[in-house]
Amino acid sequence: MDLFEKIASNRGPLGSHSHYAHGYFTFPKLEGEIKPRMIFRGKEVLTWSLNNYLGLANHPEVRQADIDGATEYGMGLPMGARIMSGNSNLHEQLENELAEFVMKPDCLLLNFGYQGVVSIIDALVGRHDVIVYDAESHACIIDGVRLHAGKRFVYTHNDMASLEKQLERATRMTNETGGGILVITEGVFGMSGNQGDLKGVLALKEKFSFRLFVDDAHGFGTMGATGAGTGEEQGIQDGIDLYFSTFAKSMASIGAFVAGPESVIEYLRYNMRSQIFAKSLPMPLVVGALKRLELLRTKPELKDNLWTVVRALQSGLREKGFNLGTTKSPVTPVFLNGEIPDATQITFDLRENHGIFCSIVVYPVVPKGVIMLRLIPTAVHTLEDVRETITAFEAVAEKLDKGLYSKNTVSA
Amino acid sequence: MDLFEKIASNRGPLGSHSHYAHGYFTFPKLEGEIKPRMIFRGKEVLTWSLNNYLGLANHPEVRQADIDGATEYGMGLPMGARIMSGNSNLHEQLENELAEFVMKPDCLLLNFGYQGVVSIIDALVGRHDVIVYDAESHACIIDGVRLHAGKRFVYTHNDMASLEKQLERATRMTNETGGGILVITEGVFGMSGNQGDLKGVLALKEKFSFRLFVDDAHGFGTMGATGAGTGEEQGIQDGIDLYFSTFAKSMASIGAFVAGPESVIEYLRYNMRSQIFAKSLPMPLVVGALKRLELLRTKPELKDNLWTVVRALQSGLREKGFNLGTTKSPVTPVFLNGEIPDATQITFDLRENHGIFCSIVVYPVVPKGVIMLRLIPTAVHTLEDVRETITAFEAVAEKLDKGLYSKNTVSA
Repeated sequence: MDLFEKIASNRGPLGSHSHYAHGYFTFPKLEGEIKPRMIFRGKEVLTWSLNNYLGLANHPEVRQADIDGATEYGMGLPMGARIMSGNSNLHEQLENELAEFVMKPDCLLLNFGYQGVVSIIDALVGRHDVIVYDAESHACIIDGVRLHAGKRFVYTHNDMASLEKQLERATRMTNETGGGILVITEGVFGMSGNQGDLKGVLALKEKFSFRLFVDDAHGFGTMGATGAGTGEEQGIQDGIDLYFSTFAKSMASIGAFVAGPESVIEYLRYNMRSQIFAKSLPMPLVVGALKRLELLRTKPELKDNLWTVVRALQSGLREKGFNLGTTKSPVTPVFLNGEIPDATQITFDLRENHGIFCSIVVYPVVPKGVIMLRLIPTAVHTLEDVRETITAFEAVAEKLDKGLYSKNTVSA
Repeated sequence: MDLFEKIASNRGPLGSHSHYAHGYFTFPKLEGEIKPRMIFRGKEVLTWSLNNYLGLANHPEVRQADIDGATEYGMGLPMGARIMSGNSNLHEQLENELAEFVMKPDCLLLNFGYQGVVSIIDALVGRHDVIVYDAESHACIIDGVRLHAGKRFVYTHNDMASLEKQLERATRMTNETGGGILVITEGVFGMSGNQGDLKGVLALKEKFSFRLFVDDAHGFGTMGATGAGTGEEQGIQDGIDLYFSTFAKSMASIGAFVAGPESVIEYLRYNMRSQIFAKSLPMPLVVGALKRLELLRTKPELKDNLWTVVRALQSGLREKGFNLGTTKSPVTPVFLNGEIPDATQITFDLRENHGIFCSIVVYPVVPKGVIMLRLIPTAVHTLEDVRETITAFEAVAEKLDKGLYSKNTVSA
């Protein structure tokens, strides 16, 4: 069969909705500066969709640093991969500051988070090694695991008994192959808001020999006393062998880093395919990341504000009877019962009649019959924003309970 | 075995050189603005290492556009993946302009080239499909192929008889599975400077049914009458089913795009994992890309200058007896006979005594006993730069012929 004919008839799980969803439910345009009130299709909406946890995206010092970096260097500098011609003192300074902040000996800056994670996993394991990973891992972890030529075992999300069983299998396997074991999980899971049970994972080091790689995309800057992440939050940062975060959430930028022992970081520096065969992070993004990290370190009030909003939102919704699942982080999922037509009606109602913009998650990410509305609180939301949102959610839930949403999917 | 112990004893093909190479041969720092004369370890060098083909990195209008984009939007905007909350009118405008420029109906902007290629390949093929690809394909293509769960056949670089044989195998295979065939090659190969034999590949469409995906990273902006790339150069742009380029070379930025039929681009928009699960290209990079594309389209003198320098450099070196292999593009490899110690001595001599900075490529990228010095001419080099470089290369080659380089590897 012709490849393009196949594609014409099979649009994929999200693509099959594009005919009614495009531009509204998918690929929407939020206009204006990044703050709680933005413009969607010409009308102001209160947005809860952006992972701008600390409000840094639009912080005046950040905005100025972004201008300064662009002015001094331009987006073209440096050119080439770090290893060829794309290195600079500022790249190294940022690596040193990140390492210190997350309490690790060394750090490697990455040109993008997604391909960073894929290549970290790819570089660490060979066909004799075994990967054991959490079932709810992000797509970038899954794609890294997919590159692995050896065995991989998945454990039930955050289930330590399941992990133990898979570690037993992995240990039997590596006893034969002579390989090692890499366990992969996340600090904060971006959909459920669950924290990875890092403490539980590490307790298993007493029985099994493995290395732990943690993707803390949503935990970096939001969790722990200093914002150093979920390892700090759980008091086990030392036990994380390799700590990763993207700059796409709290840091409100692009790029990423991985931190760990010097010899392992040095190995990654010379062996990550997405880094040695692709361009270095542009200088303005490095300058911008240095400023963001400085604010993250020196302005604890940002994280305090975030958590004030998180607590008000989550306790407020819970008091009104909403099911937020098991979140232990700023990520705030609201689970409702309903099908895709209900989900589109609710989202439409929230946006058009209540002026509230949030992301909607349906099957296959959540089970059939479940709708998840995901709210991302930030340091720049207000308690008034929270009250307004809870009121709107109450109205919508009541309408859903009464079956007042039509059974037709709303079209964009 | 412990994963980190394994790494401690096996540093990888490049990592095994880091103890003497780091900071000089690997991870060097080129300082100052991107132009032919830059600073390396405090001294001015004439650089031939940067893929700034059209000289756009430091063009005043580009530098201003980079500042304007950063000033108006900041690096944080938009946040989230395109499909969730990261879409904008400017992203769509850039897609439209790119599609028109490369003469394709539609285009999808990508947040980074490497993961873009990986996910394009991953999204296009399933386990019943077969990939047939050129043996010298870039690492990002290889990693995309590695994700493929079905069969993949590699053909000898640019060898149409070998491709035909692999297409026969692939056709037998897909006749059984009911799948399709994806052929992958490059417009310009970044190491050898060879053009992919796109015309030859397309001639095989008369005998076989397949789709052609071309990575034209080095050809976009440099090849063809209008700079639309190697397909235009060879007069077969229409035959390329999916055309890809990164912004990391002629465009002197980061990001990338893929162009092709509307229904296929629409499918990719909704099915590329690195795009639907990772952040959108930041707005200042979109603004900067629009300006770069405008200059690329409206200032043919940039490409003319480039080719004036390319012709002078390549014919000058050939006249002096240098072996440039089979390049048919601005990429200018110079092949010498020697081992790694010779290569380090030559590079050191060129940088320290002749003030010339170029990249050095050794085994395993080229065969044992061969050294490749790779020169990348740009529109902002001068004919005086070319003369100076040829003179230096003559001096170095003479010294190599006479066995005057010591047998010790130079240390950084």
